[in-house]
Amino acid sequence: MKYCSTCGAPLNRRIPPGDDRPRFVCDKCHSIHYENPKIVVGCIPEWEQKILLCRRSIEPRYGFWTAPAGFLENGETVAEGARRETLEEACARVEIMDPYTLFDLTHVNQVYLMFKARLIDGRFGPGHESLEVKLFSEKEIPWDEIAFQSIKETLRLYFQDRAEGTFPLHTGRISPGQ
Amino acid sequence: MKYCSTCGAPLNRRIPPGDDRPRFVCDKCHSIHYENPKIVVGCIPEWEQKILLCRRSIEPRYGFWTAPAGFLENGETVAEGARRETLEEACARVEIMDPYTLFDLTHVNQVYLMFKARLIDGRFGPGHESLEVKLFSEKEIPWDEIAFQSIKETLRLYFQDRAEGTFPLHTGRISPGQ
Repeated sequence: MKYCSTCGAPLNRRIPPGDDRPRFVCDKCHSIHYENPKIVVGCIPEWEQKILLCRRSIEPRYGFWTAPAGFLENGETVAEGARRETLEEACARVEIMDPYTLFDLTHVNQVYLMFKARLIDGRFGPGHESLEVKLFSEKEIPWDEIAFQSIKETLRLYFQDRAEGTFPLHTGRISPGQ
Repeated sequence: MKYCSTCGAPLNRRIPPGDDRPRFVCDKCHSIHYENPKIVVGCIPEWEQKILLCRRSIEPRYGFWTAPAGFLENGETVAEGARRETLEEACARVEIMDPYTLFDLTHVNQVYLMFKARLIDGRFGPGHESLEVKLFSEKEIPWDEIAFQSIKETLRLYFQDRAEGTFPLHTGRISPGQ
């Protein structure tokens, strides 16, 4: 961030009066430009005991598998965001159920919120960000080819909880290189 | 948003190739400036069966009561954010417990995440955004003077759940004027 998005003047970085951390401030129009974490929403879509995963056709992690997830957009609820991402990436309609994992990724300023979900009609296919989309049984999950640690951890918890028949909300922190 | 924060050129609003909604785009340096919802984190701090609330010394809702809450900052976890806000607004140290309410406020592009919490040592006082800070029993809660609907609804659920001795995560949507 170099220029003021309100007036176009160059920005400075310093602690505004009454604040306690550096912000991008404009000395011409006096705007303060805050930066805050983004929310990634997604789901673990289940169908006949199998889980729907997408193989990424985009960077980062081209060719790796992930669950449908992406940035929450303005104007939508977290459940709507998870539904939209699943439709976009896996061409699948899902019923969004309970929040399942809530992870802090402070190194990238993201909060991940993954829901339990189930396919409505069992139909799916590759969206424009996916090379292929496929249902996996627990034994078939390509653990070494999962794109993101947040998704890998969500899947690991999911199968562990499914064996016990209960799906509590899990919270935690995902660190880089974990 | 009128100017590119990367290069200072005027921005245009249109749908970028491969996207499905209008964004602020820069035709000079080709940056796309996404806007996404912000996360508000806070808690319901309990001490000896009473709840700690703050009377706001700032707009919006000057003079009204609220629970400690505010925007999540880059680099902190959601629990750390809730702890920080409680220290800033109520000068109180809390143990953050389970997530308790997760509310969508799509009309202001916010997601509220409120935790259960308890005061660590029973000490508190007005921070710089509070006129006063006070412990309230259920009967004493100033329901008509609560600043925000998201907090009012969290408190309502809290006392209802406390009577039943269980605090499940609640999710939902808070609409304007609700």
